[in-house]
Amino acid sequence: MRFNRKQDAYGREVYDYHRHGTGCEIVEREDGYIDISSGPAAYFRDFDDWKPYEKKAMAFARGRVLDVGCGAGRVSLYLQKKGHDVLGIDISPLAAKVSLERGVKRVRVMSVTGVSSSLGLFDTIVMYGNNFGLLENPKRAKWLLGRFRAITREGARIIATSTDVYNTDKRCHLDYQRANRRRGRMSGQVRLRVRYQTYATPWFDYLLVSPDEMRKLVDGTGWRVAKVFTSRGPVYTAVIERID
Amino acid sequence: MRFNRKQDAYGREVYDYHRHGTGCEIVEREDGYIDISSGPAAYFRDFDDWKPYEKKAMAFARGRVLDVGCGAGRVSLYLQKKGHDVLGIDISPLAAKVSLERGVKRVRVMSVTGVSSSLGLFDTIVMYGNNFGLLENPKRAKWLLGRFRAITREGARIIATSTDVYNTDKRCHLDYQRANRRRGRMSGQVRLRVRYQTYATPWFDYLLVSPDEMRKLVDGTGWRVAKVFTSRGPVYTAVIERID
Repeated sequence: MRFNRKQDAYGREVYDYHRHGTGCEIVEREDGYIDISSGPAAYFRDFDDWKPYEKKAMAFARGRVLDVGCGAGRVSLYLQKKGHDVLGIDISPLAAKVSLERGVKRVRVMSVTGVSSSLGLFDTIVMYGNNFGLLENPKRAKWLLGRFRAITREGARIIATSTDVYNTDKRCHLDYQRANRRRGRMSGQVRLRVRYQTYATPWFDYLLVSPDEMRKLVDGTGWRVAKVFTSRGPVYTAVIERID
Repeated sequence: MRFNRKQDAYGREVYDYHRHGTGCEIVEREDGYIDISSGPAAYFRDFDDWKPYEKKAMAFARGRVLDVGCGAGRVSLYLQKKGHDVLGIDISPLAAKVSLERGVKRVRVMSVTGVSSSLGLFDTIVMYGNNFGLLENPKRAKWLLGRFRAITREGARIIATSTDVYNTDKRCHLDYQRANRRRGRMSGQVRLRVRYQTYATPWFDYLLVSPDEMRKLVDGTGWRVAKVFTSRGPVYTAVIERID
């Protein structure tokens, strides 16, 4: 699975920002809610300008690294410089191209569901920029966490950011969460697409969870949430350790 | 005609910016093109920070003023301070509310199509922020320019900004213009809606014309384009004089 040209809204936006330093990322939710995200500028930020919860958790990276949804390569570049062997993967051909142009040594265009031991084994899996969301729903989360066990070595860690969706007082978000629960979805199982000019990704589920929900989700998969770094606001980083 | 609550995306955005200084205006075109505009920050700018073509043309305002699509009231406030008697109109109840809160003395919630001599007679009609676009299409433009004659006095002026749509090299815009001409519309007769969070205006036509197209459009309506102020970029101000 990879985005075709018209679907690669995300990659086009990253590519244009790389070339011209302009543009913004528009995210549309299935209920009609629409807003701009912190991208693409945030995807290009140097380590010094990352959020405190992103910086602190980087100290837990070790060994060979898989950077899931590497975007413009900010995490891969940082960890490469620290001496790690890093593989970046992204479903977006243009984002992958930008990562390569910016100096990420190894990048593959692929969905996270395509990972297998043919990529070799990893000690760290990074899912920054809310990319814990790529687990999509509880069923797929369990399946993917199992897959992550199969491609990691003993003592491996997943370092992932997510968003505590309950940390809001916005009526439109709380309404959407309630509608989600009513139809048997998790509160933060948000159905989104990214739009940029005439480009639009397919609609996809993106899973935003509170730290407690993450603990429950991870339970029984051979992983455990070992540490949570928060700061003001709903976004946080979790360090998830493999149970050996 | 006035926007209902869910349709007042534009007003909600202006209102939130007035209250919190945050938010952005997302504009969607019928072909799926989507982008942010310069609003809402631009709607609140003081005269000193306006574009040169906006500032220069203000010298042509005289007498009693109708500010069409007054938004957050920047033009009304400026001309009021200069001693003009100003009436601001806007289809958005929330934008009107913000204009009043910011000190515009007279504001009416109404569509430009509702103007009549019951509002009294004017010496100047201002359509800033690309609001020449509210003429929508050639047929309505002719009709509205006639209506503008009926509510103005001798020597009156329309001071309006528009965008020369041919001044672009963006493929997606040129494609859209071509599609418009093919179906008998003007190149810059763009079908849009404004979106903000879960709010969305109805789809509406917005007419963007080159100075030459404006001259042709105005021809035979009892008005003539007397002056055009341009600067770098496609947006410009026209001073349109009533022929008496």
